[in-house]
Amino acid sequence: MRAPKSRQHGENVSELTTNRLSVYLRCLTELEAQGARTVSSQSLAEQFHLNAAQIRKDLAYFGEFGVRGVGYYVRDLKRHLRQILGLDRSLRVGIIGAGNLGQALADYPGFRQEGFEIAALFDNQVGKVGQQSRSGVPIYEVNDLRKHVKRDQISIAVLAVPASAAQRVADVVVAAGIKAILNFTPGTLQVPEDVKVKGVDLTVSLESLSFFLAHGEFAEDDE
Amino acid sequence: MRAPKSRQHGENVSELTTNRLSVYLRCLTELEAQGARTVSSQSLAEQFHLNAAQIRKDLAYFGEFGVRGVGYYVRDLKRHLRQILGLDRSLRVGIIGAGNLGQALADYPGFRQEGFEIAALFDNQVGKVGQQSRSGVPIYEVNDLRKHVKRDQISIAVLAVPASAAQRVADVVVAAGIKAILNFTPGTLQVPEDVKVKGVDLTVSLESLSFFLAHGEFAEDDE
Repeated sequence: MRAPKSRQHGENVSELTTNRLSVYLRCLTELEAQGARTVSSQSLAEQFHLNAAQIRKDLAYFGEFGVRGVGYYVRDLKRHLRQILGLDRSLRVGIIGAGNLGQALADYPGFRQEGFEIAALFDNQVGKVGQQSRSGVPIYEVNDLRKHVKRDQISIAVLAVPASAAQRVADVVVAAGIKAILNFTPGTLQVPEDVKVKGVDLTVSLESLSFFLAHGEFAEDDE
Repeated sequence: MRAPKSRQHGENVSELTTNRLSVYLRCLTELEAQGARTVSSQSLAEQFHLNAAQIRKDLAYFGEFGVRGVGYYVRDLKRHLRQILGLDRSLRVGIIGAGNLGQALADYPGFRQEGFEIAALFDNQVGKVGQQSRSGVPIYEVNDLRKHVKRDQISIAVLAVPASAAQRVADVVVAAGIKAILNFTPGTLQVPEDVKVKGVDLTVSLESLSFFLAHGEFAEDDE
């Protein structure tokens, strides 16, 4: 199920670097939609408030060099970045938890645009199983996860369940063979070493802003 | 518009600490809904996969001590944490960008549950202004932001606009007097020192997982 390793030097790249590549990709997609065929690192940096030297360094690392007087070819660079990020194949996503957040994510067109296909929602509530989201994503019984993961080749699970169910559901997800989890629940999940978890907690972000508004500032990290 | 400083020692607290307090608060809310009146740090840690010693340390710092043989009183601890986080007053949120993501966020009940009130959506498209979201959040003209921020006492702005508009919109938000921004656009925003930005980029998170699936691992940060 895992794609063959990219021929680009994907092995020694940090997560911060891939995050920047994602940002470049998003900017190039916008430029392409605006009709741009080429862009310089300087212009890319100015339009999107990035660092031109960092852009050149990041792209040179992957063997992508701008052309003097032209810059980068938008479409070519986009294709190259998608390849490095493993987006040159469609990635199927399953969302666990068909509550409001799960359904909002299922219907969010931004994912599909970037090549992620939301294949299915999963829930354990009788009233929800068998239904579908507004955009037509089917809701299956979470106990059938393993079956659907195989059949629909789902490789990424999004966790949108209550906090108290998070670890239990994560265990089910891992047992179904999933190696990548986007976690919308608070707290830490315990998973095997070969499984990657990325956490997103919207309320924690808002509460951090609330604390800032109440107290005016943060101390430096005191860990 | 800023709330009076809390009497708790809120001054020397790092963002990582407030993030943990948010997580504890979420867990306590779940325990309360399950009918629990007290909880020990040990039990809290076990149920939500947290660190019991860290919980005791964090709470002791804020003068909250467990009772021997009882642990913490769930409702009291919840109230105390809400106070520390500045959630003991209602915080009004304005969402800039009434596209699919903006509207999904406006209708997400999780925010309201934690005391955040989504007061309004803002957009610049004629067809959207004057309408409202599914749950009834009104959509106003983004050029009227300043007026609504004052009238509705909006203190947090959520940015859900295209990347190329992000900095321009952030400038408008700052000019309207907002000091806290939750940013769903990729890239960095330039804001004055007294404005706090928290970034959330869902596609970057998914693409990071995609890279992991394609290459199997990340290198250590190479910055």
